[in-house]
Amino acid sequence: MHAPGAERIAFPAALHAALAAMLGERYSSAAAVCGHHGHDESHFPDALPDAVAFPESTEEVAAIVRACAAHGVPVIAFGIGSSLEGHVLAFRGGLSVDFTRMNHVLAVNPEDLDCIVQPGVTRKQLNAALHGSGLFFPIDPGADATLGGMSATRASGTNAVRYGTMRDVVLGLTVVLADGSVIRTGGRARKSSAGYDLTRLFVGSEGTLGIMTEITLRLAPVPEAVAAAVCTFPSVNDAVQTVIQTIQMGVPVARIELLDAMMVRAINAHSKTTLAEAPTLFFEFHGSPASVKEQAQTVQELAAGNDGQDFEWAEHPEDRSRLWAARHNAYFAALALRPGARAITTDVCVPISRLADCIAAAEQDMQKSGLVRTIVGHVGDGNFHVLLLVDPENPDEIERAEAASRCIVQHALDMGGTCTGEHGIGVGKQDFLVAEHGAAVDVMRAIKRALDPANLLNPGKVVPGL
Amino acid sequence: MHAPGAERIAFPAALHAALAAMLGERYSSAAAVCGHHGHDESHFPDALPDAVAFPESTEEVAAIVRACAAHGVPVIAFGIGSSLEGHVLAFRGGLSVDFTRMNHVLAVNPEDLDCIVQPGVTRKQLNAALHGSGLFFPIDPGADATLGGMSATRASGTNAVRYGTMRDVVLGLTVVLADGSVIRTGGRARKSSAGYDLTRLFVGSEGTLGIMTEITLRLAPVPEAVAAAVCTFPSVNDAVQTVIQTIQMGVPVARIELLDAMMVRAINAHSKTTLAEAPTLFFEFHGSPASVKEQAQTVQELAAGNDGQDFEWAEHPEDRSRLWAARHNAYFAALALRPGARAITTDVCVPISRLADCIAAAEQDMQKSGLVRTIVGHVGDGNFHVLLLVDPENPDEIERAEAASRCIVQHALDMGGTCTGEHGIGVGKQDFLVAEHGAAVDVMRAIKRALDPANLLNPGKVVPGL
Repeated sequence: MHAPGAERIAFPAALHAALAAMLGERYSSAAAVCGHHGHDESHFPDALPDAVAFPESTEEVAAIVRACAAHGVPVIAFGIGSSLEGHVLAFRGGLSVDFTRMNHVLAVNPEDLDCIVQPGVTRKQLNAALHGSGLFFPIDPGADATLGGMSATRASGTNAVRYGTMRDVVLGLTVVLADGSVIRTGGRARKSSAGYDLTRLFVGSEGTLGIMTEITLRLAPVPEAVAAAVCTFPSVNDAVQTVIQTIQMGVPVARIELLDAMMVRAINAHSKTTLAEAPTLFFEFHGSPASVKEQAQTVQELAAGNDGQDFEWAEHPEDRSRLWAARHNAYFAALALRPGARAITTDVCVPISRLADCIAAAEQDMQKSGLVRTIVGHVGDGNFHVLLLVDPENPDEIERAEAASRCIVQHALDMGGTCTGEHGIGVGKQDFLVAEHGAAVDVMRAIKRALDPANLLNPGKVVPGL
Repeated sequence: MHAPGAERIAFPAALHAALAAMLGERYSSAAAVCGHHGHDESHFPDALPDAVAFPESTEEVAAIVRACAAHGVPVIAFGIGSSLEGHVLAFRGGLSVDFTRMNHVLAVNPEDLDCIVQPGVTRKQLNAALHGSGLFFPIDPGADATLGGMSATRASGTNAVRYGTMRDVVLGLTVVLADGSVIRTGGRARKSSAGYDLTRLFVGSEGTLGIMTEITLRLAPVPEAVAAAVCTFPSVNDAVQTVIQTIQMGVPVARIELLDAMMVRAINAHSKTTLAEAPTLFFEFHGSPASVKEQAQTVQELAAGNDGQDFEWAEHPEDRSRLWAARHNAYFAALALRPGARAITTDVCVPISRLADCIAAAEQDMQKSGLVRTIVGHVGDGNFHVLLLVDPENPDEIERAEAASRCIVQHALDMGGTCTGEHGIGVGKQDFLVAEHGAAVDVMRAIKRALDPANLLNPGKVVPGL
């Protein structure tokens, strides 16, 4: 880990005074508030900001950034704190900008299948707001993350195999730059060749190039029919072969998730389910009733060809919800396997043809680590997570987990894959970024310097050495 | 037009000598060769480079760029010269780098639905190479453009409504930077959150940030069934209403193209077809046989509800090919309406709900211009082109066409659209870029300066004032 060992930057009293005057009760430097904002779901040690602002508009965010820039103080955007890579940690101190109060759905345009939201809107909140419109927001990372956080990390999750990632659904942004100026990128047209694709540059930039204050999102029509299924396999490899064949045949499956036996055990314990404790695939199919039936039939045949057993249907919405709730709680279920533990999580993504090889190699590395561990994956994308449970106070365990993680990433890179499919670089994966992209990281650094010369926006994240 | 009025930059004899020594017969400063490379399909006056290089490898491109950089000489990447926005014109002189000899398909990975090509491969060539693989390359801008050119302009075309644009299908790039160094962006994984999305930054950067030398592309499975249809309407508005309803219902149509009566007349004259000379939609449906039938039935019903007539089928591949060949020749057919004319082409794209309004407004502007003109559009995306035919020697006609073009763009921007859906900014649309993106253009300029401080890569394109 590139511990941003840099010392904390002084937070001047004049800045405290200016922000307090600007924001009143929506500004705090209370220990409890700073504590909440110096912490995420990663295993990294907490790192508290000096203060927290709760803006209500783009103009306020711009004024906040201008004030911080005038004092050379870092600014860190904060959604809901569900990051797994330390994105919100304030290693150098500074101001956390919490988007809780910018949580309005500003517009829904059903006829154009798009909407405009503030960054504090969570994905569940957006879907609730879309209820009855015939549309839904398809990106589902499990956690009820904010759309700002999801955009900033280029998140994806269980639906990406069919609906893409935040890269695909963010159409446009309002962004506050490092000097407090405001720009708009992209727009509501379905496509554009008008200049450099700044929207895609800010998506996934983890708050280091600018702070998003409005997000235009593409929505999807609610499918006419939805069906889910569960199937167990004698081995992870049998399950993965089923996935590979499904993708290669072009079946437009909406979700296809792998859980290893340990993860199913964890879920049963945590969610009071009674799933068979074997390698398991969860499927979901979207389309017309005929198309859903066709898809499911094809996949059932492929599963049978790989010794899949107990192909079970969940056509009722309640059954489906129970199934996916269990899947969504996987991360916390896994943590509960070892009370008090934190997870070191890998996030590699490889070309689908190499998925079985990569998982097999990862299993060896996991075994070598001797730690409690489990696998869960958005395998339709070639993306899977190894969760290695560590005692956060035990440096030896952390080192064993990190060693396993390094090996798994190296396998993925050797197979033409990426070190992170959806969690982002944050503080923990900067060495991997260099291993994966080499000299291209210098271009990233040049862009960071051009857009944030004083290195005030979420410093120490993404690009090593800044 | 931001005429890059800047004077031509001297091309030193030492650079001539160095490039001739490096490339031998693959280097030329012959007038005919320079003439061919100082010309595209736009109405802009020719602007010849001082010399042309025909590299065969990434290493050669890097060496060429290093040599030019050492002498402060511009470098302009050249695909096949089908640009409509003056992208290849060498207003300041310099070296044109022609990718004709870098036209190899380097790898096809059917199991991962991807391939790696050199930038000189054309889309038809790629599809020929994919024949028998069960896969095809779905982006089809009409012209048999190179994949380098298509990537550089973020091209799309008739299939984008279903398969996306170059933004969506370029997975990774090898890029030579302005100093001659080489980077690799993206990769073969289906998704990644590893750092800034440089792939998307270079796609659509029109050769101004770097020169692509290898392109990894996502492919699509050849659909099990394909059907095409043609339908005429009493008015353009009736046709457009059919399109809007089709998209809003979520019919996964593969192509949906509008031609006005004048364009059909032009096509009949040029392609010896006998289509009814009325506003017309061309459709194509991809999927399983059942799905194709379902889609076509839905669309036929929608068309009938808008007084569509003579819904005609083309299920045989030959009939389909004839239909689409006619559509693909639309640009040249339109030019033939007025021998010797050049076209000033608009490329606006609006949210689908505003498409009818935007086309109606454009028709008024076209009428005011008094010029021969026609409309053709990838209307499923909300994208349409007005072709205004001008005598390139007649400044009054050019001014009338440009006035109409400005009005049409302003309508599109007022409706939340973009000035260019797929052709790019080039030299002709820089004012529109500013009108559309305002202060965001300053960010584009900052990025350009960070990556190409000496302004050697296709100078005078995209970003105004450089």
